[in-house]
Amino acid sequence: MNTRRFSKDTFEKLKNKAQKTLHRSLDQHIKLAVTGFSGSGKTAFITALIKHLTTQADKQNLPFFDVAREQRLIAVKAIPQRALDIPTFDYNCAVNSLLANPPSWPSSTQRINTLTLALKFETRNALKQHLSPISTVYLELIDYPGEWLVDLPMLNQDYQTWSKEVLTLLKQPQYIDYAKEFLTAVDTFDSDAVVDETILKKLSEQYQRLLLSLKQHTKVAQLQPGRMLIPGDLAGAPILLFFPCDGVMTVSGETQYMHLEARFNAYKQQVIGPFYKQHFCQFDRQIVLVDILSALADGPDTLREQEQALRNIVDVFDYGKSNMLKRLFYPKIDKVLFAANKCDHVSYEQQPQLAKLLHSMVHEKSNDLRFAGVEIDTMAVSAVQSTQQTQVVESGKTLNCIVGKPIDEPHQITFLPPQPPTHCLSKEQWPEQGFDFLSFAPLPAKCGNLSHVRLDHVLQFLLGDKLR
Amino acid sequence: MNTRRFSKDTFEKLKNKAQKTLHRSLDQHIKLAVTGFSGSGKTAFITALIKHLTTQADKQNLPFFDVAREQRLIAVKAIPQRALDIPTFDYNCAVNSLLANPPSWPSSTQRINTLTLALKFETRNALKQHLSPISTVYLELIDYPGEWLVDLPMLNQDYQTWSKEVLTLLKQPQYIDYAKEFLTAVDTFDSDAVVDETILKKLSEQYQRLLLSLKQHTKVAQLQPGRMLIPGDLAGAPILLFFPCDGVMTVSGETQYMHLEARFNAYKQQVIGPFYKQHFCQFDRQIVLVDILSALADGPDTLREQEQALRNIVDVFDYGKSNMLKRLFYPKIDKVLFAANKCDHVSYEQQPQLAKLLHSMVHEKSNDLRFAGVEIDTMAVSAVQSTQQTQVVESGKTLNCIVGKPIDEPHQITFLPPQPPTHCLSKEQWPEQGFDFLSFAPLPAKCGNLSHVRLDHVLQFLLGDKLR
Repeated sequence: MNTRRFSKDTFEKLKNKAQKTLHRSLDQHIKLAVTGFSGSGKTAFITALIKHLTTQADKQNLPFFDVAREQRLIAVKAIPQRALDIPTFDYNCAVNSLLANPPSWPSSTQRINTLTLALKFETRNALKQHLSPISTVYLELIDYPGEWLVDLPMLNQDYQTWSKEVLTLLKQPQYIDYAKEFLTAVDTFDSDAVVDETILKKLSEQYQRLLLSLKQHTKVAQLQPGRMLIPGDLAGAPILLFFPCDGVMTVSGETQYMHLEARFNAYKQQVIGPFYKQHFCQFDRQIVLVDILSALADGPDTLREQEQALRNIVDVFDYGKSNMLKRLFYPKIDKVLFAANKCDHVSYEQQPQLAKLLHSMVHEKSNDLRFAGVEIDTMAVSAVQSTQQTQVVESGKTLNCIVGKPIDEPHQITFLPPQPPTHCLSKEQWPEQGFDFLSFAPLPAKCGNLSHVRLDHVLQFLLGDKLR
Repeated sequence: MNTRRFSKDTFEKLKNKAQKTLHRSLDQHIKLAVTGFSGSGKTAFITALIKHLTTQADKQNLPFFDVAREQRLIAVKAIPQRALDIPTFDYNCAVNSLLANPPSWPSSTQRINTLTLALKFETRNALKQHLSPISTVYLELIDYPGEWLVDLPMLNQDYQTWSKEVLTLLKQPQYIDYAKEFLTAVDTFDSDAVVDETILKKLSEQYQRLLLSLKQHTKVAQLQPGRMLIPGDLAGAPILLFFPCDGVMTVSGETQYMHLEARFNAYKQQVIGPFYKQHFCQFDRQIVLVDILSALADGPDTLREQEQALRNIVDVFDYGKSNMLKRLFYPKIDKVLFAANKCDHVSYEQQPQLAKLLHSMVHEKSNDLRFAGVEIDTMAVSAVQSTQQTQVVESGKTLNCIVGKPIDEPHQITFLPPQPPTHCLSKEQWPEQGFDFLSFAPLPAKCGNLSHVRLDHVLQFLLGDKLR
C-alpha cells in the first residue's frame, strides 16, 4: 500500500463523509400503517397527521407530543417514496377539501397508498448527540383498506372451515334477507358434479353482489374475500370466482368442489400472501381506526360483530408471533393503536367512555400479543375536529352538548349526544331508544389551520420513542 | 420389501394407471399468444378461432387444416384455465355480437386474457398410435395488448438512449403539432435541479396525455411506456411518473434526472420484466395481427412507422435467442406468424399483394430469427369475413369489386378497392390519390356459422405439427 499524505482539507472532507455515513446508519426508517374500514376516516386522519407535522407542529398545538413540546422538531417535509409501484397518497387534494369553505371530508381511497415524510429533529439521545445533535426519521405512511386486513385470517383457514364460518354468518337474522337468494342457490349447487365453469361463474358473481350489498346496507365487517369488493386488475380472473359452499371433499375426479378449493387456495397464495409478506410483515407500527359510533347507532348485533372483527384483527397481529422460529415471515409490528375516531361526535365528558368501550372490546383478546412484547393502546380521538363543546342549562340542569354542522344540513345545530356505554351491551341491556348519533362535517379551518382532538397523544404513542 | 401377490384385477388397474400416466406425458400443452395493436382485430380473431374449432371444424370449412381435412379432429372444448390470476377471455359475449343480427365487431379487451381449449384427435404418429390412437392437445390462448409488446425493446435500453429515441420520434413533422406543448415544457425542465415531485408529476401527466392523444389521432405504434395507456392498478404510482428528457447524468446529489432514471429502471424491472419472464418467455407460438390497410390509408409516414414497429417486434422475438446461454430467460417461441388481418377489405386478386407487402416489411429483419430456428410466415387473412367478392363490367372492362356493409352506413355497397402496393413506398412513390380503404361490418352469420378467409392456413401453420 502507498503511504499518502493528506492535506488538512482532504482530511476534513473524509471526516465529514465518515460522519455522514454514520449518521445515515443512525437515521431511522419507520413504516406506519393506517387502516380501518371504509367510513372510519383513514384519509382524513393521514391528511391531518401530515398537516400538523408539516405546518402546525408547535407546542401549543401538539402539547403531548414530546418532540413538539420540547421544541426539538426542526422541520418536516414530504420526500419521494421508496416503493415506486404503489400510488402516492394525494395529500393536496385531501387537504384542500378540509381547508375549503365550506369544508368537506376528503373522498376515500380504494387501494393501498403511501407517502413518506422526513422528520428532522434535535436529539436528546446521548450517543446520537455525541455524533450530531440533529437526526432524521423517515416516516413512511401506508394507507390500506381494512378489507385487506379482514382477509388475513383466511391464511389460517382451509376452504371447508372458511365456508362453514361464512355460511353461518350469512344465516344470521340481520343478514338473511340479503343472503336468502344466494343461500338457496348454493343449496341446490352440486359440488360433486364435474366442473361447469358457467355455474361457478354465475354463483361467484351472485356471491360478489351479496358482499357488495352487505357492505352498502349493513355494518358487517367480515366480508371475505376482500378483493371481491375492490377487484382492480383481478376483475374477471378465476382467482376471484369462488364462494362458500357446504360440500365435502370427495376423493376422485375433478369436481366443482375441488375447483372452488383450488381457487380459494390460489387467492390465499397469490393475493393475501404477497400483501402479507411484502407489506403487512414490514410494518413497524399500526393504527386501526374504528368508527364505533356508527356501530352503536346500528344496534347490538353490529357492535358485537365489530368486536369480533377487532378480535380477529388482534389475532392477525399475533399471527406467527408465538412461533416465530417456525415461520419465514411474521409481523414485526411492535405497537398497535386502536383509535375510536370522530370522538368529538360525543361530548368531552363522554369521550373517555368511548375509549373504555373500545378497550373492553380488544383488551382480553390482546393478552397474548402483549406477552409477545407488542404494546397496545386504545384512544378516543378526532383527527379532524368537527364539533365544539358547549353547555346548555335546561330546567336548572347543565347539559354537556356539542355544536356542529350535520352533514347534508345547511346550518349548525346544538346537539345533546346519547351516553355511550363503557362495554359491549347485550341485546337485553340495549337501551330502548338506541344510540342516535349524528354525522358532522369538519369544522372550518382557522387561518389555514386544522384542529384535532388528541392527535398529539396518537403521535406520541406511535412515534415518541423514535424521536428522542 | 414385502413380496405381494396381485389379483388380476389389481394388475389391470395398475396397467391402466401406467398407460394413463404415459398418455398424459404425451399430451401436449401449447401456449399460443395472440397480439396486435388496438384495431387489428385480436378479439374477433380469437373468437373466430374458438368458434371454428369447437363447432365448425369440418373438412369443407377448414380444408387446409390437416387434422380437419383428414377428419381426425374428434372434439374441441373449452376447459378451466391453469393461470387463475388472469381474466378469462369472454367468448360468449364476443361470439354473440358476431352472430347477432345485424352483427357487429366485438368490443376490444384492454388487458391480458386467456382461454384454454382441449383438442381431442386421432393421431397419425406411429409411437403415439401404438399406445393409443387418441391424443389430446391443450391449447392455451393468450390475448395481450400489442402495447405491451412495444415495451419489450425498452429492456435493452437505458434511460438516456430511450429518451433520445422518443424525443426524436416526437419531433417528426406528423407528430409535432400534438407534441409541441410537451416538448416546450420538457425544454425548460431543469433535470439537474433537486427533486420536485410536483414538477415530475405534472410533466409525466402531460406526457401521458400526449401518448393518449397520439394513440387516438395517429397510427403511431411506438408509444412507450405502454402502461401509461392502460395503467390499471398502477394508476398514480411513481413507476408510471416518468417522461423522456434530454438531460445528462450528473455525478453528485439527488437530481430530478436521477429520479426519472430510477423510475424508468423500476418500470423495466417491475412491469416489463415480469411480463417478459412470466408470459412472453413461456409462449410456444405467436401470431401478430397487423392492420396494414389502415396504415396504407393513413399515408407513407404511418406505413414506414408500422414497418419500424414490426422490425422492433422481430427483434424482441430474437432477444436472447442468439446468446441463450448467457441468459436465464429467453423466448421459447418457435413459430411466429404475421397476419395482415381484414384482407377481404381488398379484392381476392389483391390479397396476395397484401401478404407480399407484409412480407417485405419483416423479411429482411427476420433473417437472424430464422437462423436461430424460428419459423416465420406472413399471410393475408380475415378471421371473420366481412365482404364478398363480385365482378362489375364497366366500359367493357371487368373490375374485381367487393360487396359489404360499411361500418356506420345502413346498407351494403359495391366497392372497388384501391390496388395495395407490394412493398413500402417512399413519399415520392406514393400515389397522389392515396389508398382509400373502407371499414366493413362483419357479414351476417349463416345458420349460426361464421365464415373466414384462410383461417385454416393459420391453424395449420400454428398447430398442424402438433396434431399429427
